[in-house]
Amino acid sequence: MKFELTILGTNAAVQYRNRYLAGQVVNIQDDLFLIDCGEGTQFRMAECQVKKMKIDHIFISHLHGDHFYGLFGLLTSLAMNGRKKVMKIYSPKGLEEIVNVLFRHSNYISPFPVLFYDVDTEGGNHIIFEDKKLMINAFPLTHRIPTVGYLFKEKTMQRTILVEKIKEYNIPFAQIKDIKNGENFMNTEGGLILNSELTLPPPEPRSFAYCSDTMYFEDIIPYIQGIDLLYHEATFAHDMVEQAAKTGHSTAYQAGLIAQKAEVGQLIIGHYSSRYDNLEPLLAEAKTAFDNTILGVDGKTYSVELKR
Amino acid sequence: MKFELTILGTNAAVQYRNRYLAGQVVNIQDDLFLIDCGEGTQFRMAECQVKKMKIDHIFISHLHGDHFYGLFGLLTSLAMNGRKKVMKIYSPKGLEEIVNVLFRHSNYISPFPVLFYDVDTEGGNHIIFEDKKLMINAFPLTHRIPTVGYLFKEKTMQRTILVEKIKEYNIPFAQIKDIKNGENFMNTEGGLILNSELTLPPPEPRSFAYCSDTMYFEDIIPYIQGIDLLYHEATFAHDMVEQAAKTGHSTAYQAGLIAQKAEVGQLIIGHYSSRYDNLEPLLAEAKTAFDNTILGVDGKTYSVELKR
Repeated sequence: MKFELTILGTNAAVQYRNRYLAGQVVNIQDDLFLIDCGEGTQFRMAECQVKKMKIDHIFISHLHGDHFYGLFGLLTSLAMNGRKKVMKIYSPKGLEEIVNVLFRHSNYISPFPVLFYDVDTEGGNHIIFEDKKLMINAFPLTHRIPTVGYLFKEKTMQRTILVEKIKEYNIPFAQIKDIKNGENFMNTEGGLILNSELTLPPPEPRSFAYCSDTMYFEDIIPYIQGIDLLYHEATFAHDMVEQAAKTGHSTAYQAGLIAQKAEVGQLIIGHYSSRYDNLEPLLAEAKTAFDNTILGVDGKTYSVELKR
Repeated sequence: MKFELTILGTNAAVQYRNRYLAGQVVNIQDDLFLIDCGEGTQFRMAECQVKKMKIDHIFISHLHGDHFYGLFGLLTSLAMNGRKKVMKIYSPKGLEEIVNVLFRHSNYISPFPVLFYDVDTEGGNHIIFEDKKLMINAFPLTHRIPTVGYLFKEKTMQRTILVEKIKEYNIPFAQIKDIKNGENFMNTEGGLILNSELTLPPPEPRSFAYCSDTMYFEDIIPYIQGIDLLYHEATFAHDMVEQAAKTGHSTAYQAGLIAQKAEVGQLIIGHYSSRYDNLEPLLAEAKTAFDNTILGVDGKTYSVELKR
């Protein structure tokens, strides 16, 4: 039951040494979701052995190039690899026009359907995707152009049936599903076995939010309150707080402050300015506000474990 | 007096292992010209230590994504690096519209002027650039969409003055330029020294042409006749000659045949299909038509030496 985040790029604006542009893959119970797709994201996916053909949904935070210039190449590569399944792409308005202009001049027609969803960038928190396993929300951030954050949250799973109880009470296969859903069990002698004896409670739903790019923006706190894992941009150190505000970015300290106020489980910072060769001072700074902070690292995978 | 070609990517359509997308840098007497700019070209330039800030002219062969999806990121990276100089971009019509749409949605205004030149894709061979050192021509290729090849040709240089003769005849500095341009020298006693005694003839102008993507197309032969170095695409082996024609590409044998008929100095093949893991059979095949063929290799630099 995976709940994993693989970070493909952690640098802001341009490549800097081993730090590439924005792109992350969320693996929730083996469904893959791509968030942002800077230039080279498809190359990073190959390096990180991400199965790009398994991605059916792409979420773009905003239309600055370092967050989406890799999308066009990814779409054409998927076509070359024989993709036929529909691809759904969520982003602030404009991406469909861009892709259409590009493909028109290439005289290119995608062999798989590409559906674009314009995400509301002003109206607060709203659901943009839902299936049996999870729900995805978008909510406005504050940057130089319309930008959204994305929240991935598992739905409550079934209770876990205890294998030894199946044997003990000779529970027929057909009833296991109902018992996982909380029903009691009536044995052949008419005895009632309470569900609580047969099962463990379900694990807690896990959650992750992606907030990049954004200046310090407390309005997002209720949307990410208590989540397990937060990726929040930390483009600058706090001695550049004015530059951060001016360019619509956050400092590492501000990222920590958001994590602290939202009482998240863990904070990963990233989207570093190329001026920072050594990232340890950014980490130390974020930790002054929120201790359970780690540095986002290109190519690294972060897991949220199941908890009961 | 450099005349060098650095190949940044040799694969067709998508990345394949260590082979990346189309992009080449021509260095002619320390002026840099970029030809094509597939996704990741800016990363390859960093790896190959190409000084991207020195590039003032970009030539795009056609508007298939694997030849230009890296352009937008390169332009924004140059801006981040403080570029102020004008950038001139030559391509079949459409690129200006594409870049304008992208930049509009990013609310981005380039801090340096970007000038677009629509290259004629039908009217035969024509000059698109000229300065003191060289001339650049474009000529139509035959592909699925309008596509051009580019020819880089040095102008005849000055004659080389012999240092020992400057001393022997006590030639004043002010007259050296005229002597390099072919004039004779009158010494203080009124004696005439013939230019041929004072100088060596200039080196032969060097030339390079880039032909990708194209099906086998003999019309280009007069334009590239006798050039020193030809890069010609060889997407397929000749057992796929029908597939090559259908997709607007060439086989390795056909690339060799063009080189043979145009009597070029050396042929570099590239733009390989991902189906070829081992490229030696493509090389062997091209060599059956033109022996002085080599494989294009990502990250490698090829020099054309001065000849007299």
